Amino acid sequence: MAVVKETDTVILYDPEKGKKYFLNLSLAKGKFNTDRGELELSELVGKRYGEFVETHKGFRYVILPCTLYDFIMYKLNRLTQIIYPKDSAYIALRLNVKPGDTVVECGIGSGAMTAVFAHIVGDTGKVISYEKREEFIKNALSNLRKLNLENRVIVKHKDIAEGFDEKDADAVFLDVREPWLYIEHAYRALKTGNMLGVLVPTVNQVIEVLKKLEEMPFMDVEVCEILLRKYKLVPERFRPEDRMPAHTAYLIFARKLPEGMKE
Amino acid sequence: MAVVKETDTVILYDPEKGKKYFLNLSLAKGKFNTDRGELELSELVGKRYGEFVETHKGFRYVILPCTLYDFIMYKLNRLTQIIYPKDSAYIALRLNVKPGDTVVECGIGSGAMTAVFAHIVGDTGKVISYEKREEFIKNALSNLRKLNLENRVIVKHKDIAEGFDEKDADAVFLDVREPWLYIEHAYRALKTGNMLGVLVPTVNQVIEVLKKLEEMPFMDVEVCEILLRKYKLVPERFRPEDRMPAHTAYLIFARKLPEGMKE
Amino acid sequence: MAVVKETDTVILYDPEKGKKYFLNLSLAKGKFNTDRGELELSELVGKRYGEFVETHKGFRYVILPCTLYDFIMYKLNRLTQIIYPKDSAYIALRLNVKPGDTVVECGIGSGAMTAVFAHIVGDTGKVISYEKREEFIKNALSNLRKLNLENRVIVKHKDIAEGFDEKDADAVFLDVREPWLYIEHAYRALKTGNMLGVLVPTVNQVIEVLKKLEEMPFMDVEVCEILLRKYKLVPERFRPEDRMPAHTAYLIFARKLPEGMKE
Amino acid sequence: MAVVKETDTVILYDPEKGKKYFLNLSLAKGKFNTDRGELELSELVGKRYGEFVETHKGFRYVILPCTLYDFIMYKLNRLTQIIYPKDSAYIALRLNVKPGDTVVECGIGSGAMTAVFAHIVGDTGKVISYEKREEFIKNALSNLRKLNLENRVIVKHKDIAEGFDEKDADAVFLDVREPWLYIEHAYRALKTGNMLGVLVPTVNQVIEVLKKLEEMPFMDVEVCEILLRKYKLVPERFRPEDRMPAHTAYLIFARKLPEGMKE
Repeated sequence: MAVVKETDTVILYDPEKGKKYFLNLSLAKGKFNTDRGELELSELVGKRYGEFVETHKGFRYVILPCTLYDFIMYKLNRLTQIIYPKDSAYIALRLNVKPGDTVVECGIGSGAMTAVFAHIVGDTGKVISYEKREEFIKNALSNLRKLNLENRVIVKHKDIAEGFDEKDADAVFLDVREPWLYIEHAYRALKTGNMLGVLVPTVNQVIEVLKKLEEMPFMDVEVCEILLRKYKLVPERFRPEDRMPAHTAYLIFARKLPEGMKE
Repeated sequence: MAVVKETDTVILYDPEKGKKYFLNLSLAKGKFNTDRGELELSELVGKRYGEFVETHKGFRYVILPCTLYDFIMYKLNRLTQIIYPKDSAYIALRLNVKPGDTVVECGIGSGAMTAVFAHIVGDTGKVISYEKREEFIKNALSNLRKLNLENRVIVKHKDIAEGFDEKDADAVFLDVREPWLYIEHAYRALKTGNMLGVLVPTVNQVIEVLKKLEEMPFMDVEVCEILLRKYKLVPERFRPEDRMPAHTAYLIFARKLPEGMKE
Repeated sequence: MAVVKETDTVILYDPEKGKKYFLNLSLAKGKFNTDRGELELSELVGKRYGEFVETHKGFRYVILPCTLYDFIMYKLNRLTQIIYPKDSAYIALRLNVKPGDTVVECGIGSGAMTAVFAHIVGDTGKVISYEKREEFIKNALSNLRKLNLENRVIVKHKDIAEGFDEKDADAVFLDVREPWLYIEHAYRALKTGNMLGVLVPTVNQVIEVLKKLEEMPFMDVEVCEILLRKYKLVPERFRPEDRMPAHTAYLIFARKLPEGMKE
Repeated sequence: MAVVKETDTVILYDPEKGKKYFLNLSLAKGKFNTDRGELELSELVGKRYGEFVETHKGFRYVILPCTLYDFIMYKLNRLTQIIYPKDSAYIALRLNVKPGDTVVECGIGSGAMTAVFAHIVGDTGKVISYEKREEFIKNALSNLRKLNLENRVIVKHKDIAEGFDEKDADAVFLDVREPWLYIEHAYRALKTGNMLGVLVPTVNQVIEVLKKLEEMPFMDVEVCEILLRKYKLVPERFRPEDRMPAHTAYLIFARKLPEGMKE
């Protein structure tokens, strides 16, 4: 059984109300207080996930782990449009990200994609994230800290107009307004044979990226979009939910060929 | 730069024809032979990805790494319907799979989902895969071997009607015909607070799974389906491809609550 | 140029605010009053669509026709979930409804589908609509009256448990909770070779309908769902809207074969 | 019961093989001949739909009506990409086409959209179709003749670069390569307050149309796409079909405002 650490973000689950409280233990100090009574948060540390904790009124909450998905969807502090799990999971797989990898990305946004990369590269890998805007860096690092992923991320407070410092990244990912301006830089930062990923919200941007990719030594270009449709949970009247996201972003992938070679 | 190992699956890329050859170096011994000339495969080992190799006629191929995505889509030997990257990537993220985790699954199928789990859990993690049919095991292991992922997978040639051996899995995943029969077993194999995943192709199966989940201490149930639409790559006439997959599977997720507790 | 009739529903369009007012002239009597000033509604009658009318303050509205689509989407009084144009247009075409046809349906709901049928069958056709609930009939007829379609619709305040009175309908459409109970009745009401349509919101209902259709002399069965995705209107940043309907209904179509014949 | 006319397209249905033969009686003269035996086609005329006809070997076919949907999907002779019922039904409804209307369109293509308009406008309406290419006109008219819809269609063998002859169309529809060049002409042909429809396959074309519409007195602009997903018909294993069309076209709608007025 996994043990609650003092840096964890945990879920306290109220089984009667079916309500979840997300708490980061290194930030939320002192007492947790609801109409169910209060409890000392430091008591949670060292307990095992799945155990109960009791308030002074005798009400019992369950301690549940906060998954990366939970955090991104319900707890991540957003200063920007975030990259949703349906997209970020696919991006990470398409870029072949795995434990030990070095991933280079720009920009950090609110850190939702960064977190997915960091989650997968593990303690032996690194995510190097370029970002121009200081307030985004501060917010993203705060989010990553609550996920215990901060130590896997190196943030560079730089404009990538001058290029990336890296030359041998396992994967490069661009989530910027004008990605076509930086594809040559991304190319140079990436291992030959490895994958570049680009995310853009509009068709006009996709078109510019495609034009740029056509000029350069890239192959296996793919442009796609992912739709996720949820269903209502009533087995006797099974049907999709009434509404769904119609669009988050277009995803573009391409594999780096050696210099001088055009597909 | 990553170096080609003798157990790797590599892509030899013919830049003139735009053609890719997938070769597993531990299996494909001796000479590689096309109308471009021949080359000794053992020469590839020790070279770096992105380098060129030359045939005796002087034609140059590029050596490219075979990503997990490439392998699943183009090279995996299929005895069953496979789980596609759009689904497997999301499943792995929803189940919160990460380096070091122990994932329990049933069945192994052709190993496409197993490979994604093994890819992410890394050398410090394990995928324990239950499978009744010997021919599936043999084929899946052959696929995993070509991905250098075999050492992360423990296959159990067992019927799960008697349950799983594990009690503390970080994630449990069911891809079987009648998953509702095994959800109690899955429950017992899983850490409290962690995620169960179920994949089924038909609505009737979803309904049975939902009924079973309703009876048991699970919360955060989600049923969804993922659609991936690709676009044609002509920037001057940008438009989706003409056809797309309409359906692969329904995905079901649920979080284990402590025994005796109903959401 | 079409002339405004005293039974028409019209749109008064305020070009400065970009605002539309839907007014049914047979109901909205007297003065139309906004901060732009007032105008006598009876003055609209006899004008041509596209003309301007002026308030006593000298502000000019444009008189625009209210299309069937406008009315269904923005003006129809809803007591029930309605059938949306993306579905109703396809249903009418699949059922081969055309001027002069006799269409039999059950139930009338809020009249959105009835209106589409009545719109197409024209003055020489008829829609015969069965409905058990008086308040639905009253509301639907009020909606149809505002569309000048009331005279093409015959409402029968009956339970179809005893069957339809008709024997030779050009098309039959069922939008009821348990359509499988009435498919034999629908069969008898329909011309041989012609189409039955069924709309249901849940998968469980589709399954029951399919089982019933399998037992009976029907062919060319189709089950489908229609998704409509809108785009934002900014050409420089062209992209889909953020959200869309995920589900309205499943549509089922089948063609009647002669009695005693099974496909 | 509807009676078979000598100009009808009928379906002869072989109930044992589940096979349909589409026959246009004014073209398919003489004997219909299969391994079931032969029958004189002129014998079909005057029979009622749903009746049987017998071959000289005593085998019985059922005579079924060919719906507009059947004809478009299975029998229409295609020289071009056609407009599918999921799109054409919605277009007709959005353009508010009804019995008695005059619809102006360009170009005729293979006549699939023309047929839907002609089907709905009835004997009292007209579809005026502009087309530059003679072979398209010839083919489309042949298709329309087999649907008994030819008499409702006036084809103009003209380039619309000089504009439309009409000034007061109930609806205008453009399906041409560069529709933005003709939107001013379309505007002049259309009744004020009525709807223009445009169909284009690529995003780049949508963008050009939107730019043009922005400059002109149009309101209520909508851009959308329609996806239709079919399901397999096995109630015990209910699930969508494996593949579906990913794209046919983008649809654009706009309502004409009076001259000089910008939304």
